[in-house]
Amino acid sequence: MPAQPRYLEDIEPGQTVEFGDRLVTAEEIVAFARDYDPQPFHLDEAAGARTHFGGLVASGWHTAAMVMRMLVDEYLHPETSLGSPGLDELRWHRPVRPGDRLRVRVTTLEVRRSQSKPSIGIVRQRLEALNQDGEVVMSHVGMGMVRARTLPADMAAGGGA
Amino acid sequence: MPAQPRYLEDIEPGQTVEFGDRLVTAEEIVAFARDYDPQPFHLDEAAGARTHFGGLVASGWHTAAMVMRMLVDEYLHPETSLGSPGLDELRWHRPVRPGDRLRVRVTTLEVRRSQSKPSIGIVRQRLEALNQDGEVVMSHVGMGMVRARTLPADMAAGGGA
Repeated sequence: MPAQPRYLEDIEPGQTVEFGDRLVTAEEIVAFARDYDPQPFHLDEAAGARTHFGGLVASGWHTAAMVMRMLVDEYLHPETSLGSPGLDELRWHRPVRPGDRLRVRVTTLEVRRSQSKPSIGIVRQRLEALNQDGEVVMSHVGMGMVRARTLPADMAAGGGA
Repeated sequence: MPAQPRYLEDIEPGQTVEFGDRLVTAEEIVAFARDYDPQPFHLDEAAGARTHFGGLVASGWHTAAMVMRMLVDEYLHPETSLGSPGLDELRWHRPVRPGDRLRVRVTTLEVRRSQSKPSIGIVRQRLEALNQDGEVVMSHVGMGMVRARTLPADMAAGGGA
């Protein structure tokens, strides 16, 4: 868990945060694939070598899951993070292979306080997963619901609609 | 694996296919969360009960992974399915809880043969994950690369660009 919760007021458009360092292993690629995506190129190096991937590659959903783990460990905080309604523009740009090390870059695009429930807000953020060579392997534009530290001055004073 | 491969020519806009029946268990929700999304409401019934979820709920990425497994088992075929560059409009509409049974509905929106590589094409499909009450719990609009059975007549005859 990250040391400090990030409240809505702590997040600003243009902010970029980078974190994470997750080694991808063949064992984990295969274990995820056996449960959730048992296609040949996710299960077996030799089978992968016979495809356009040229070897064993992680399921795109496995990459998304590894990124989620880095978000939970180093970015989201249970006090402030209230889940996500979804995301847009999910793209798998490059294969993720055994031995790769992944990290995450989050760039805030938009911060909006809820009109109907001003104690929370929605942030829109571009997320990029990078490999050890700095190449983007996956990206998406996600929405997150975030708790605010305080109400706007006019509302805290009993004003507002 | 599905009995029959679906080639590009077998897929038409407006087609709807429904399949899958996957029981969601508390054990599996927790196992996935421990590895990839260890937030309290994915790990523990009592912790979940103290949140707006009101109990243990599956990680949205776990739902996506369970849907992928149903696609591999019953829809995609290694002869024809060539992976996906990504998807749009991923939304988690409702919580997925222990005891739910999930199925998948795929509706084809668009089928396009590649201009540069006419032996394959791209299909755009709306995917919906439904629970046992027919409620949509997750949806997205995905792109899939699919092998064609034959080349267009003019190209097979040596014509075309």
